[in-house]
Order: sequence, then structure tokens, then C-alpha cells
Amino acid sequence: MPISVKMDSFLERSSWIRRMFEEGARLKAEHGADKVFDFSLGNPNLEPPAEFVPILKELLDEPTAGTHGYMANAGYPEARAAVAAQTALEQGVAVTGAEVVMTAGAGAALNVIFKAILDPDDEVVVPRPYFVEYGFYVDNHGGTLVPVDTTPEFDLDVDRVEAAITPKTRAILINSPNNPTGRIYSAESIQALGKLLEHKWLESGRVIFLISDEPYRHIVYDRAVVAPVMSAYVNTIVATSYSKDLSLSGERIGYLAVHPEIPDKRLMPALVTANRILGFVNAPALMQRAVTRLQGVVVDLTPYRENRDILYDALVQAGFTVPKPEGAFYLFPRTPIDDVEFAREMAASLVLVVPGSGFAGPGHVRLAYCCSRQTAEGAVPILLEIGKKYYG
Amino acid sequence: MPISVKMDSFLERSSWIRRMFEEGARLKAEHGADKVFDFSLGNPNLEPPAEFVPILKELLDEPTAGTHGYMANAGYPEARAAVAAQTALEQGVAVTGAEVVMTAGAGAALNVIFKAILDPDDEVVVPRPYFVEYGFYVDNHGGTLVPVDTTPEFDLDVDRVEAAITPKTRAILINSPNNPTGRIYSAESIQALGKLLEHKWLESGRVIFLISDEPYRHIVYDRAVVAPVMSAYVNTIVATSYSKDLSLSGERIGYLAVHPEIPDKRLMPALVTANRILGFVNAPALMQRAVTRLQGVVVDLTPYRENRDILYDALVQAGFTVPKPEGAFYLFPRTPIDDVEFAREMAASLVLVVPGSGFAGPGHVRLAYCCSRQTAEGAVPILLEIGKKYYG
Repeated sequence: MPISVKMDSFLERSSWIRRMFEEGARLKAEHGADKVFDFSLGNPNLEPPAEFVPILKELLDEPTAGTHGYMANAGYPEARAAVAAQTALEQGVAVTGAEVVMTAGAGAALNVIFKAILDPDDEVVVPRPYFVEYGFYVDNHGGTLVPVDTTPEFDLDVDRVEAAITPKTRAILINSPNNPTGRIYSAESIQALGKLLEHKWLESGRVIFLISDEPYRHIVYDRAVVAPVMSAYVNTIVATSYSKDLSLSGERIGYLAVHPEIPDKRLMPALVTANRILGFVNAPALMQRAVTRLQGVVVDLTPYRENRDILYDALVQAGFTVPKPEGAFYLFPRTPIDDVEFAREMAASLVLVVPGSGFAGPGHVRLAYCCSRQTAEGAVPILLEIGKKYYG
Repeated sequence: MPISVKMDSFLERSSWIRRMFEEGARLKAEHGADKVFDFSLGNPNLEPPAEFVPILKELLDEPTAGTHGYMANAGYPEARAAVAAQTALEQGVAVTGAEVVMTAGAGAALNVIFKAILDPDDEVVVPRPYFVEYGFYVDNHGGTLVPVDTTPEFDLDVDRVEAAITPKTRAILINSPNNPTGRIYSAESIQALGKLLEHKWLESGRVIFLISDEPYRHIVYDRAVVAPVMSAYVNTIVATSYSKDLSLSGERIGYLAVHPEIPDKRLMPALVTANRILGFVNAPALMQRAVTRLQGVVVDLTPYRENRDILYDALVQAGFTVPKPEGAFYLFPRTPIDDVEFAREMAASLVLVVPGSGFAGPGHVRLAYCCSRQTAEGAVPILLEIGKKYYG
């Protein structure tokens, strides 16, 4: 057929998610957008921080030549240095600009990493539930995703990771704070994971990379701390973006950073080359220059925390089993029936959520609370009503 | 090894190009940047048109919510519609926004296309010389590049294309105006190619796509016209960017457009899905909004034309065989000796060029004249001197 067999199967598989989106659009058209409570999309509703637009205008006024042209594929030296300084603070190791590649967001960073490291049929272990795109990112570069269960509270289960490691394992991919659970993996489990990977590496001589996807590192509540992965293990690569903490998801700006003491010095050239040959070429120039001046800046998290509290309290009151999110902007309650059925039932009550099956976490639904307070508050009576039906 | 075997071989293979770049940097450090005449990079030296910065500032002042957030993976409807209207004019067919995907440049567009259409070992025929990245783009998605010779004047040789078509051929990839030759494929050869592909399609039932990479469509001289590929064949996809005509190469903004009457209606959803799952997600938001208002605007081509004339005249006077470029900003003279050797010799004379071997066009070198007039003029005596040595 004119489109590839694999792409055809992707279109078939994704079609029920598409049908749910279409259902949402239909409901909004029928009932009015303000009557539909949409928790389906992880698209930040907050605007970028107040500094953002003035900084962009300043940059546009600078008469520097060539600022919209190509730069080195790894990004501007100033951007790489600024990112490295912040990453060094967060990770507790001396990252420099030489270990940073500016990327078109975290999705780009992950594809660049997998392109650089995966041989055919190499395995990437990922704790589930996980962000659905990981499966595509690994498959794009010939790898195989190997999901392992987390604990009942969605924390990393290092014994299960160990049991999943084979001679084909090339990487462990973690995401903390987690989409879709809101869980921050405990410092103890990160330490134990680092020790495990070091042991496996010394034992077999084969490097297993720890890849940490961290777009929610700065979206945390109640003074929660995200453990520094680079302090736990040397063969570590961090991938992240400014999509969430600066609300710039549409601008495609992020970066990857490699542990400065990583033994294989071909990794950085391989990552830079992958960024080029995958067609990313470089991260968008103007946004690189903007984030250079926005290190340490984060959107005001108060609205997200308030939404979390409103919806968490309502779900608990309604009888749902749901861990309290420590970060990100997702709730992942257990469902009383099949999650796809349950998501359909909620949609019929005008509350839009995503079935956990879409995250390899069946028996749950995901509520994204990066929405208006009105949406969060408006859904409360409906959640209580649904709870009454199932949990009395 | 920790990096993939394939990536390791890429690093090995590209190392002599890297050595040449390093040699150039060394020469500039030693002799001063103004004493080195650098024609190695296709990075436009012209700034974006005067309208660009005021339009960006206007967009930043608009208080629309969510303008830096996600939009549909295909792009903003307004951007797609604006692009479609311009494409319809250029291609002579009724393209609408529904046939357009905004992409992070032409490199992104080509990767998206190959991801959508290539099954393992599918073949993509490309006339040579060609842009070196094509090999990577096709290989990224499991395909095989099949180069075919062009005419002595670097025009499309449709008989050779026909001879290269096999049951595995899925696409023909053309690039006109061409990098590295500056050639615009003749209207007759485009017509003949369309007829050939239609014949092959009807004969075998297997679609062969015509993919036209057109980032230089608007960089033409002497009122040259670039033939509309969509008017020649229905299974046509255009990929392009604003890197050259708006000098925005660092901002990563472009698009792909599909012929509106293309029979397989799964192609558009496949392309949109590919844009998402490859990690591009969407083209940068602010730049989408900017180019929406910049349709039909092109940088002033006078400096490029003047550089072309200065260098073309010098090369001819020096005795080189070189076709006069009709578009793009490259000259591709034949070399009197092995092209890698010759490029090294030119570098020793402080003129930096790229060996044609890097474009599957050995026996030539590429001069990129998107440089200052001083650079073009400064190189003339050196070119004459080199010519004297070889051509007397």
C-alpha cells in the first residue's frame, strides 16, 4: 500500500483515541464548551511567565547578524552554558555546556538519544504506566520497549527492573514526576536503580544507559524534591523541555544533558549527529536565546496546586482510590470498571478523561488538571455523582 | 558498543568533512577570518526581510491565550490555509489547508514523508549530485537510496530514472533549484517524469510518489521559472522551508503539501501522525504565525545574483567547466584533479569549498555564495591563480 504497513497499523490502533477526541469535540459543539469539563490534554493552560515576552522583544531589538540562521547543531554556546549551569545545580554534578545539546523539546531529545544508542532489537526498559509516545520513540529507531510494573503507589520497583534486564537491554527510561500518575520516584529507588545499573555494567561490560525524561522536574507541590539522577549513576542522560515549566509546549524547545564523566566520549558527537540527521538540525534559534535568559524561572504553580487539591479531594470523597500527585499535573484514579468503558461513561456525563490503557495502565483514567479553576470546580458534582453510583 | 554500530560508522565516515571544517577554523584563527574565503556552508548571510521583526513584535503584542502552547500536530489552520493559497498559485492545482502540514523545516518534512510511506527496503530514486542528508533521511526509516545520473548539464535524465525503477521503488526525490548544482530541472523533464510515474503506476498498480524538495523555489535568477510538479503528476508531495527565502534557517519552519487529488486518503493522517511520533510534534508556534503573514515575501536576491556573477565569471575566466546557476546559491565546477585533493589545495590557498564527493558528485567542488560580496571578490584572484596552474 502507498503508506507503510507499520504506519497503517498505527492509524488503526490510534483510531479509538481519535474517536474519543472527536466525541469531545461533538459534546462541546452540542452542549457548549463551558458545559464540558475537559481533562484530556496535557496542554498547559497557563501563559508563559511575565518575563517571556519582554525578553523576546529585547532579543528582537538586538542588531546581531545571523541570529535567525543556522548555528552549530548542538545549539548556541551561550544557551548550552546557561542550561548546563542550571543542570549542574539540579543534578549535583559538574555539567558544562559541552555535555548539552539544545533540542526541539523533550520528544526530540528522546528520539535523538535512541537514534544514537540503539542497535536493532535493543531493549529499553520502562516502568508502567508511561507516556504513550515512548513506544513510538523506541520503535522509530529499531528498539523494543520492555514495560515493567511499578509499586501499587506507582513508585519505581527496582527488583522488577532487574528481572527485566537481558543481554539486549541498552537503557532504562524513567519519567519523574510521572505522566500519567503524578508520582515522584523516591530518592531511595533512584539510588537503588543507579547501583543496579552500575552492577550490571561491571558484571557484563555492557553499558545500560539511564535516560531520565524530566519535563515536570519543576512542576512539584508541597516542597517535594526530585532526586538527582546524575548523582546516582554515571551513564545517565537527562532529556527535558520548557513545555511545562515555561508553558512553551508549542515552541518546541528543550535540551538533553549527558553526565560529564560518561566513559564513552563518542556519545556526544553521536547525539549531535543524530540531532542533525533526524532532520531536527538544531533547536529553534530565537527560543534558544530566550531560555538562555530564563534559567530558574517557572510559571506560578498555585493554579495547578489548587486544581489538584479540588479534584483530589473530590475523587477521594467520591470513593476513588487515587494517590495524591506530588508533581506534574495529572491524577490517575483507579476505575470501578474497564477504563475505556468508564472514560466513555464519564464523557457521557461531560467529563473528558483518557483511559489508562493509553498509558499501559489499564484500570485507571488520567485527568490532566492543567485547566481553568472553573473546569476543575465544575466537574466536582459530576465526580461525586459517579462515585455515588459505584462506591455508594 | 554503547553507541549504535550504525551511528559509529556515520561518525567515522563524516570525520573527513569534520577535519575540513576544523581545518577551516584553524586557518581563520591563524590568518584572520577576513583573509579566509569561506564558501563551505549553505547558511544564508542575508538577514530576514524587513517585515519579519515588526510582524513578530505585533504577534507578541496580541493578547491571544495559548499562542505558545500546543496546537493540532498539522499546525494552525490559519498557517495551513495561507501556505495552501500560495502553494496553489505556484503549483497550479487547488491545494487547501487540509493538504498542508506545517513542519520544522524541509528536513523535518522529508523525514515525516519517509516515515509515512517507506516499508523496509523500499527504494527512493534520487538524481545525483544530491544533498548529502537525503541518504540519512531515507535510511532513518529503513529505505534505500538509489542514485541515478543526471545529464552533463545536471538536468533530470528521465530515461535513467526509468531504468532505476524496480518493484521496490516507492518514491522519486527531486530538488530543483538544486543543491549543489544550482540547476533548475527543465519543464520538459518534469513533464516527462510525471508521465513516466503515471505510466509505471497504471502498469503495476504500485504508487511511486514524486517528492519535490523545494527550499530554493524562490531563489532564482534571470526570471527563471521552476516548473510546478503538482501539475505534472497526482501522487506528488512538496517539501520546503523558509530557511532560504526568508533567511530563517535557524528557526526551523517549513511545510509539506500533498496534491489535493492524491488517491490514498490515508496519506494525510499518516503524515500528521508521523510528525507527532517522530518527536517534531508540531512546527514552532510563533514562527508558524509569522510565516502566515509573510506569504510571497522573499529576501532581496540582488546580493546573491551579484556574487554568482562575480564567481561564475572568475571560474570561467580561470578555465573551469561550470554550468551557470539558474537558482539556489551554489556553483559546482568540475575539478582538474580528485575533488577531495583539490578542496584541500584550495583550503591551503585560503578558499574553503566542499568536495563534490560529499554530494555523490565526485570530480567537482561546491562553492556556496550566500556570503558577503567581499568574500566573493576576495576569492577572485586566488581562483584565477589556481586556474593558471591547471588550465594555463
